[in-house]
Amino acid sequence: MSLVPLPPPLITFLVPYLPQNRPDRPFVTLTWAQSLDARIAAAPGTQTKISHPETKTMTHYLRACHDAILVGVGTVLADDPKLTCRYGNFSKIRPVVVDPNCRWEYSKSTIACLCEQHTALAPIILISDDVVPPSEENALLSKHGGLYRAVSLDASPEHNWGTILAQIHACGLASVMIEGGATVINSMLPLCDLVDSVIVTVGPVFLGENGVDVAPSVLVSLRDVSWWTGERDSVMAARLSDPETSEEQEAKTNSAD
Amino acid sequence: MSLVPLPPPLITFLVPYLPQNRPDRPFVTLTWAQSLDARIAAAPGTQTKISHPETKTMTHYLRACHDAILVGVGTVLADDPKLTCRYGNFSKIRPVVVDPNCRWEYSKSTIACLCEQHTALAPIILISDDVVPPSEENALLSKHGGLYRAVSLDASPEHNWGTILAQIHACGLASVMIEGGATVINSMLPLCDLVDSVIVTVGPVFLGENGVDVAPSVLVSLRDVSWWTGERDSVMAARLSDPETSEEQEAKTNSAD
Repeated sequence: MSLVPLPPPLITFLVPYLPQNRPDRPFVTLTWAQSLDARIAAAPGTQTKISHPETKTMTHYLRACHDAILVGVGTVLADDPKLTCRYGNFSKIRPVVVDPNCRWEYSKSTIACLCEQHTALAPIILISDDVVPPSEENALLSKHGGLYRAVSLDASPEHNWGTILAQIHACGLASVMIEGGATVINSMLPLCDLVDSVIVTVGPVFLGENGVDVAPSVLVSLRDVSWWTGERDSVMAARLSDPETSEEQEAKTNSAD
Repeated sequence: MSLVPLPPPLITFLVPYLPQNRPDRPFVTLTWAQSLDARIAAAPGTQTKISHPETKTMTHYLRACHDAILVGVGTVLADDPKLTCRYGNFSKIRPVVVDPNCRWEYSKSTIACLCEQHTALAPIILISDDVVPPSEENALLSKHGGLYRAVSLDASPEHNWGTILAQIHACGLASVMIEGGATVINSMLPLCDLVDSVIVTVGPVFLGENGVDVAPSVLVSLRDVSWWTGERDSVMAARLSDPETSEEQEAKTNSAD
């Protein structure tokens, strides 16, 4: 399936939010497509089309601007995604899958298939350091050029992101695009020290109360907010505000007055 | 508190979605301001500022274009709102409060205060026909020119909207702006035969998982979608699609492929 062209104003719009080198950790872009009711899928474990073709192209353009793409195990289990970049000269992007309990059967995935054809980079699979991956899985992944990486994980997931990003940096990956799912997004949104850019596509549909919703555990304020509107979707790009320095908290008037 | 001016492009943007006379029932505009995570308040029973001043002005402009403004009892109890129109020559708008069990003490509200000063129209309070309002409340409301109206209500709330709109029409009100809260919005969103326009302001903030979220019980598709972007907020205006004629259902590709 070929991509529609990327509207030039959308390229300009994205420039301030693209990766820049930083010495301490990979540049992190948190991005997803959601409905107006903040659902990324109509039901748990299912795929739902939300983006218009032009914002779908944007996703592949953003992938071309990053070294790695990270998703949680829930996303690979639900979607069996390709996690490839189809923008421009089909530049390759390194998939990183966070799978603490080693639930994903890499050998049965579409990604493994693409790696066998040499049309994708093999993933780095981050597993908990008390878990041993099956030896056949490990062998195939190594053959493809990927690896399991054992990480010391904390009980509370939000404490793990610093460790995970350090591992990614140690693999020589200078930027990572974090695409979901909801568990990953919700645990990263409050982490203003670890997230550089947030890019959200809003599709004009309501997926309903049984959908998988994006909502962090606490209030999250944004700064440097820009919107771009396409044929059907609206895209918001921003940076996370530091809650310590944010003046957002005074807010106490209401829209229904 | 005075309103900031309404940006002229926002006036143009709203034109196709403004009330038109229809013979069968009042023209219905469903409108609210929400966070990116589709929350209209940070916690149940509380007020949260979401709109930028320019989209707040839009709300008052829209009120000036309607005969009535409807909210559920949850909103009057949580916010004690004024429900007045402060746009232009302070045109008056009729508040309609849906309060089946007659929980709202009108006499203690800000609206009663404004009516005493003759700076607002007194509300029509829709109550269930098996409920009798307190006589002092009834007396004050009548003195101010408002009324309790008994409505035969069905056990399932979505069946009541036809009855409620017929009552509003019978009061000579040709258009109604429905502003919330979440219970009202969620039960009206699936009713494409009763809702003419949907206007949603999205403020770039995440209010978090404990907020009050907008999410209908079923998938709701939109048509004639337009977006307007202001200094901070984005506004989406649309009409509801008829699920029978909507081609949205084929959707099965995913944003993470």
